[in-house]
Amino acid sequence: MKKADIGLIGLAVMGENLVMNMADKGFSVAVYNRTTERVTHFIETRAKGMAITGTYSLEELVEALEKPRKVMLMVKAGKPVDDFIDRLIPLLDPGDIIIDGGNSHFPDTIRRAAYVESHGLLYIGTGVSGGEEGALKGPSIMPGGSPAAWPSVKPIFQAIAAKTDGVPCCDWVGSDGAGHFVKMTHNGIEYGDMQIICEAYQIMKTYLGMTNEEMFEVFDEWNRGSLESYLIEITRDILGYRDEDGNAVVDLILDTAGQKGTGKWTSVAALDEGIPLTLINEAVFARCLSAIKEERVAASSILSGPAPVFDGDRAAFVRDIRDALYASKIISYAQGYALLRAAAETYGWSLDYGGIALLWRGGCIIRSVFLGKIKEAFDREPELANLLLDPFFQTEIDASQAGWRRVVAACATHGIPAPAFTSALSYFDGYRSARLPANLLQAQRDYFGAHTYERVDRERGEFFHTNWTGRGGDTVSNTYNA
Amino acid sequence: MKKADIGLIGLAVMGENLVMNMADKGFSVAVYNRTTERVTHFIETRAKGMAITGTYSLEELVEALEKPRKVMLMVKAGKPVDDFIDRLIPLLDPGDIIIDGGNSHFPDTIRRAAYVESHGLLYIGTGVSGGEEGALKGPSIMPGGSPAAWPSVKPIFQAIAAKTDGVPCCDWVGSDGAGHFVKMTHNGIEYGDMQIICEAYQIMKTYLGMTNEEMFEVFDEWNRGSLESYLIEITRDILGYRDEDGNAVVDLILDTAGQKGTGKWTSVAALDEGIPLTLINEAVFARCLSAIKEERVAASSILSGPAPVFDGDRAAFVRDIRDALYASKIISYAQGYALLRAAAETYGWSLDYGGIALLWRGGCIIRSVFLGKIKEAFDREPELANLLLDPFFQTEIDASQAGWRRVVAACATHGIPAPAFTSALSYFDGYRSARLPANLLQAQRDYFGAHTYERVDRERGEFFHTNWTGRGGDTVSNTYNA
Repeated sequence: MKKADIGLIGLAVMGENLVMNMADKGFSVAVYNRTTERVTHFIETRAKGMAITGTYSLEELVEALEKPRKVMLMVKAGKPVDDFIDRLIPLLDPGDIIIDGGNSHFPDTIRRAAYVESHGLLYIGTGVSGGEEGALKGPSIMPGGSPAAWPSVKPIFQAIAAKTDGVPCCDWVGSDGAGHFVKMTHNGIEYGDMQIICEAYQIMKTYLGMTNEEMFEVFDEWNRGSLESYLIEITRDILGYRDEDGNAVVDLILDTAGQKGTGKWTSVAALDEGIPLTLINEAVFARCLSAIKEERVAASSILSGPAPVFDGDRAAFVRDIRDALYASKIISYAQGYALLRAAAETYGWSLDYGGIALLWRGGCIIRSVFLGKIKEAFDREPELANLLLDPFFQTEIDASQAGWRRVVAACATHGIPAPAFTSALSYFDGYRSARLPANLLQAQRDYFGAHTYERVDRERGEFFHTNWTGRGGDTVSNTYNA
Repeated sequence: MKKADIGLIGLAVMGENLVMNMADKGFSVAVYNRTTERVTHFIETRAKGMAITGTYSLEELVEALEKPRKVMLMVKAGKPVDDFIDRLIPLLDPGDIIIDGGNSHFPDTIRRAAYVESHGLLYIGTGVSGGEEGALKGPSIMPGGSPAAWPSVKPIFQAIAAKTDGVPCCDWVGSDGAGHFVKMTHNGIEYGDMQIICEAYQIMKTYLGMTNEEMFEVFDEWNRGSLESYLIEITRDILGYRDEDGNAVVDLILDTAGQKGTGKWTSVAALDEGIPLTLINEAVFARCLSAIKEERVAASSILSGPAPVFDGDRAAFVRDIRDALYASKIISYAQGYALLRAAAETYGWSLDYGGIALLWRGGCIIRSVFLGKIKEAFDREPELANLLLDPFFQTEIDASQAGWRRVVAACATHGIPAPAFTSALSYFDGYRSARLPANLLQAQRDYFGAHTYERVDRERGEFFHTNWTGRGGDTVSNTYNA
């Protein structure tokens, strides 16, 4: 019996659909699942008639694979990945490849790549994005790890990946944790994209009093311009969706969202790198705030605010909201790319920023026309420090900023929460400020903690201390971080 | 020769001043420093004539101490603390106490408390705040760790601590890392307090065109009302300070501030706990943005914005700025206390929230009249879920919100970065929203990832999935977190 091209462990929605996708592209797949009933069910239903073999032990799975063996894990991130790695290592031969296709935290992937390589095997940690449907029809795939593993895996991954203009949305990202870092950043950006869409929706709904049908039309129109993207498209469809009883399902859904996943990791990574990732951070915290529904309901009857009454030109204000969404999106990606640059420096990855935009250009949740513009910006200047400095984005944000400012000002005035729109604007105005008030902050730190400061009229790296009160000693702080 | 009451390792500014403070309160202190020249210098200068003994090895230090020995580390957080602990353990006897008074990260303190206790010793990790002058004249002290250590240390710590209305700003916080967690949160709040003062300064300076002298007067006035606090007071003094040549020093200071310390840890802790700590987070990121001075200078000539021209009533707008500062401060403390509550739950600490306000009421950098109001709020309701729900703070924020909204709207309109003021307002408007747009977000997640959702018309805990496209399978996600 011919051996299978690849093995896959974990038959939840993403795993199952990836297997279907591989089989559809002509690869034979052996599958295994911890709860083995799931294997039988899959083989007897969706997998029926495909080149998919069910196996009921890891030994059987490994035995079923062509060498060098490729075993892909689609299991819950964390301990299950380590457990399967430890169980697989003794079963595999030198040169075999373990692939983790889950949403693992990149430091785990850095650690696991070294661990698996120390046993003579190869390791790939790969981001897979596109959700249920993407996994089935063509996801975006972001692999990193042991470079020697890539040639064996490349034909399968590039075949099953989404294609944009014929180019697969899958290419090698970099060593050890680079793939999972890029996937994590993608997810952070996804959090941001979803949040800014929600803010646009909230403003149209509560401030302009628009119906789902009217908003459906707006998102439909937006999806035909520079905002064209998967998330705008599905938002339109969601707003247009009614159940069998004619109810708008979106109105029946409870407004509490989960977090603690990769969005949070992106915020922590940004804090570690010292990169202001304000929009994504607000998106993460907005989910946290949504989660305390009972507390908000109680607070809503205690804390009052202005009544949001709109009496302007609604169509014009919808254009302003579009500008706010677009400008905020530019800020979010500018911040996300700044994070990638900083991480590449920290972890020694040579990332191809334009190439990463292409990986995200199709297949994944954040796929959009916009990413093509980012690719072009990095084609113009591969070492671009910040997307905002690219002539195209500079022009776009300039054209959007008046509307964006009107929306933020209106939200502040009328009591509508728009944390991502507003934090994005604060960042924009901070980033373009030659002088920020941190001089005062440094004076405060020197005043109470003798932390010293640099001066505008002296060279960088020269530090000064003022005895502000005339009372303190001359001892300068070196152990105390206030 | 009589043995010393306490030993202290690390003679940088905080350590030296704490020793002077202890000696001043009648305690005898033995000191040690890795670079021993520092010991000689200290003994021959500031310590001359005091009950302070210089020692030149750890053995000599330990030998010089009364039992149970109390050895306080005032060294750089991180590895130096672990190194000294490992060197001290073999020299100490059961029941002796190692105290870490540096800014250690609370998970390290949790780990070290268990480690030191496993060797039959006792451990205290304590926050010490107040900077150079506070350490000398009376800091705020936040000790946690082995409860059995507290009775021996209490007389010294409460003697050297600041007093407010005769009550020492020092009391037992809780087990293992509780003291350092509270100190970390204090520092995060300090980041926030400094940032909102900087924003008030920036708006007065760049939008209202006020001089240092005019701003000196404003801060002087603010310091006589509900904003009365150490940081407002020193800001006034800084704005009034001129060097020997008559230059306003604040104008000569470079506008780049450091971070990576405890402010960042507070943000990460908030992300771990899922508590929206948006204001402190913006304060941390504002420091990051200030650090990329060259990039900002370059961006300032590329990215344009509106010219900030003010033509209103300046005195009235200064009152609005005061309201924005005050309301933002309330939000920041509300968020910080929400973080403390969540951490207490996670780590099993029973924190006395009103008591913590009293610890911060004097001695430390964030000391203020305001903290007395927080104490009163927790006296009224010890289990207060959020400060905003207390009648006093509810009334205060209500009285401030019109001015706060005008300031945020003006900053957005005129291009002045005020990230903390604006994120605080977004939080306020989000917190008091019974309905947030997370219903749309949950629909998106269910659409692309089969993540399921809850419904407003059903019980919590019941999850639904819609086959939005009519194309996907019925498999529900359980491994994939988008």
